[in-house]
Amino acid sequence: MSDLKFRIKAQRASDAKTIVKARNFEIIVDEPQSLGGTDLAPNPVEYVLAALAGCLNVTGSLIAKEMGFELRDLQIEISGNLNPARLFGKTDVERAGYNSVEVKMIPDSDADEVTLNEWLRKVESRCPVSDNIMNSTPVKVGLKLLQVA
Amino acid sequence: MSDLKFRIKAQRASDAKTIVKARNFEIIVDEPQSLGGTDLAPNPVEYVLAALAGCLNVTGSLIAKEMGFELRDLQIEISGNLNPARLFGKTDVERAGYNSVEVKMIPDSDADEVTLNEWLRKVESRCPVSDNIMNSTPVKVGLKLLQVA
Repeated sequence: MSDLKFRIKAQRASDAKTIVKARNFEIIVDEPQSLGGTDLAPNPVEYVLAALAGCLNVTGSLIAKEMGFELRDLQIEISGNLNPARLFGKTDVERAGYNSVEVKMIPDSDADEVTLNEWLRKVESRCPVSDNIMNSTPVKVGLKLLQVA
Repeated sequence: MSDLKFRIKAQRASDAKTIVKARNFEIIVDEPQSLGGTDLAPNPVEYVLAALAGCLNVTGSLIAKEMGFELRDLQIEISGNLNPARLFGKTDVERAGYNSVEVKMIPDSDADEVTLNEWLRKVESRCPVSDNIMNSTPVKVGLKLLQVA
């Protein structure tokens, strides 16, 4: 299979608010007032957890079908711990992002526990967003300067 | 500074559609029809790029203030390449997620190029979502079984 390319374009609306376009969709990102925003939308690190949940559902559905059991329902609870000291310039030793992420998958299915644990292992291994959180990915950041008039 | 905990709860709506609650916000995740969804919302890996854009704006605003220049505007373009072969069970050798992410930051500011490159280096180092994509993070996935009636 060949690579797929995904793209977004983002426009700053204020110090903490960003309007993102992904295909024909608009995603608003903001911060709560405690983190300097206007609290009009989820914040960036909440969107990371939402992306993970969406991905676990897609991957879980696909693999349940492969394994031949019905996934009648699925609830997912995710939490992550993050220390904001590096973001706020208080340290350059601790990391900036989540230091750990915890996921609870609550499937409704007739499959037995052995089958569901096998399903979970496959889901973890094949979910794209899990991979991008669990493993390192090169990010190339470049600057484009506006032409001076 | 002490750790902050972020949380979401997600409910499967269909094989590809997920309804996520983050605080008082609802985030809809879906897939295009080509990836098995109903195309009602961005997909999980697009939300990862949106999260990164939002985070780069927040971090960029904070650091521009620290460095004493005005960020009049900021546009951000992000793309990522991903091979879906592992998701679809065609390989267990290649990775599941983005194999690379490319970011273009387009600031409007009176700061000179040396200052903007210094700004960019600090933003990369202090943005939580950049950290979670560039570096590995433990994800603990557990199963909660529903009680059999």
